[in-house]
Amino acid sequence: MPPERVLVAAPVLEQLVQGIFLAHGMRDEDAAVLTRVLVWANLRGSDSLGVSRALRYIELYQKGKVTARPEIRVERSRPALVFVDADRAPGQVALNAAMEAAIETARKTGVAWAAVRAATMTGPLGYYTSLATDAGMIGLAFDAGVPKMAYTGARGAAVSASPLSIAVPAERHPTVLLDMGTTVAALGKLAQYKNQGKELPPGLAVTKIGEPTTDPELGTVPLPLGGARGSGMSLVVELLTSVLVANPIVSTFHGATPDGWLPSHNAALLALDVAAFMPLDDFKRSVDETLDALKSLPRDGDDEIRFPGERGARTEAERRASGIPLPKKVWESLLAEAEGIGVEVPELKPA
Amino acid sequence: MPPERVLVAAPVLEQLVQGIFLAHGMRDEDAAVLTRVLVWANLRGSDSLGVSRALRYIELYQKGKVTARPEIRVERSRPALVFVDADRAPGQVALNAAMEAAIETARKTGVAWAAVRAATMTGPLGYYTSLATDAGMIGLAFDAGVPKMAYTGARGAAVSASPLSIAVPAERHPTVLLDMGTTVAALGKLAQYKNQGKELPPGLAVTKIGEPTTDPELGTVPLPLGGARGSGMSLVVELLTSVLVANPIVSTFHGATPDGWLPSHNAALLALDVAAFMPLDDFKRSVDETLDALKSLPRDGDDEIRFPGERGARTEAERRASGIPLPKKVWESLLAEAEGIGVEVPELKPA
Repeated sequence: MPPERVLVAAPVLEQLVQGIFLAHGMRDEDAAVLTRVLVWANLRGSDSLGVSRALRYIELYQKGKVTARPEIRVERSRPALVFVDADRAPGQVALNAAMEAAIETARKTGVAWAAVRAATMTGPLGYYTSLATDAGMIGLAFDAGVPKMAYTGARGAAVSASPLSIAVPAERHPTVLLDMGTTVAALGKLAQYKNQGKELPPGLAVTKIGEPTTDPELGTVPLPLGGARGSGMSLVVELLTSVLVANPIVSTFHGATPDGWLPSHNAALLALDVAAFMPLDDFKRSVDETLDALKSLPRDGDDEIRFPGERGARTEAERRASGIPLPKKVWESLLAEAEGIGVEVPELKPA
Repeated sequence: MPPERVLVAAPVLEQLVQGIFLAHGMRDEDAAVLTRVLVWANLRGSDSLGVSRALRYIELYQKGKVTARPEIRVERSRPALVFVDADRAPGQVALNAAMEAAIETARKTGVAWAAVRAATMTGPLGYYTSLATDAGMIGLAFDAGVPKMAYTGARGAAVSASPLSIAVPAERHPTVLLDMGTTVAALGKLAQYKNQGKELPPGLAVTKIGEPTTDPELGTVPLPLGGARGSGMSLVVELLTSVLVANPIVSTFHGATPDGWLPSHNAALLALDVAAFMPLDDFKRSVDETLDALKSLPRDGDDEIRFPGERGARTEAERRASGIPLPKKVWESLLAEAEGIGVEVPELKPA
């Protein structure tokens, strides 16, 4: 049975969540960014990366695993490079700062690479690559985190289920927004099967010790997309994010002395300025023409031919208009937290 | 029955192929580069991208589809960008020039993006990303060509089987060299099934009109890796290569007036200078440690745990030592071509 839901308007949800973060000592701007990214995930339909995570950040603050008032350092060793030492900030705050710096840099240099060291849970990479398209640029993002995915030939969790995102601006059509992991099925998808008590399709996941399974309780380690290819992609992302910023995850996690290791994420964000190639409007028109050509191809079935980001854009339009459907449990836990620390609770208008 | 083979030493093969290209009017340097990349593909075991293609270039010259003496223009609109108008040069010549320019640029700017417009068949992307690792950098490459792959929801060939490559330098271990397409199985793999008359495993390919098949004669359109994910990756690569350099392939190919359209490739090559982050030796050591950690994990079976590029490096070492096994037919066609245009034929020492 699906959980009971309440419909919450995005601004109401933002006010509540931001109030909670502020009450827990975050800076105004950091709380605003973190809240905006979480609510964006809900708006786009990526609920597992949305406000249901908000209270987890509070827990992690209290355990000292996330820095509530981080001192993020932004450095430039070369004209087109940005290095962001995240000081264990929420990933949303660090990656937002990194992409903003990359965009500013790419205006001058044409392309910029921002490397982020030691952030925590990074959230939906599509948010940061969308910042680039909002600025008339193409955005790319890679992220490496805690090893949770299998690697071809090894048993159990070996490497990160590295998400990657590429966003390209369009005009008539929504932004083309690829946001994928290197697994056959997203971790959130496995969690869904587990929550609903449904058997896993074969080939999606293995057990902790690498046994094939369709049991949703045991199949916690997702298999890599295309076997060696998804494995290889995850490995190179680890090398060009974590190893490059001197915060290797794979070798530390599997090393002899994992004690004291704090899970973290490293990321690379890239902004490419379209205007350095052609007028932005011409580019967007040509992107539209490509999407039109694709969507006009003979269909294989009744469904329309979709491009990455199209479904998310529709969900966003619907949810901005009618509200975000939140599991009642999530909404009530946010209300309880707010009341407990004296944050004003917004009124929930009936949907 | 596998075709009869002859073993040819790499320098002998290079001398022969380069002689043929020179006799057909290529410039010394261009002929050297094209030959080197073709022979490199054979050395690495990617025979379908090797010297068996040499005579195809000659045909394409003669039909005016490839420029034998191209005027490649290299421009810079911003400090970290390189734009290469390939003038329909062999892709090997254009992409080699582009990566060399990207490497030179990245020494100053830290990262550089080289966009290549209108090259022909591009060959193994791993060659160009290896140029970056040879220079102590990380290399990335994306390529879009003629639509040959299916796109989720559409019938038949819709988008390019876009290859992508990422190379990262190591010290004790060979270079980590990811070189993959966005298909479930490479086009070369489908050709192998066809040549050997073997039934295709289900889920690899469809017919020209999108029907599932295991018939190797009919299954000519490879399916995208992970369905929507491989489809999406190919689409965004088309946007950030072809559309960005004003040479869109998907919209032209499927457009109303495909007449006069000449198949071409567009590519993006990226060089990232490791020394801007940390001393190169420290980085390579940390890459080695990551590979060691990975290879030391509990094995799922008897096979060792491999990283991308490991097998190719072994094949290269073997073939440099003992020669390249060429189908007798390929070797004899090269000899016949050479004799026909008065190129000195090197002596083939018995293996």
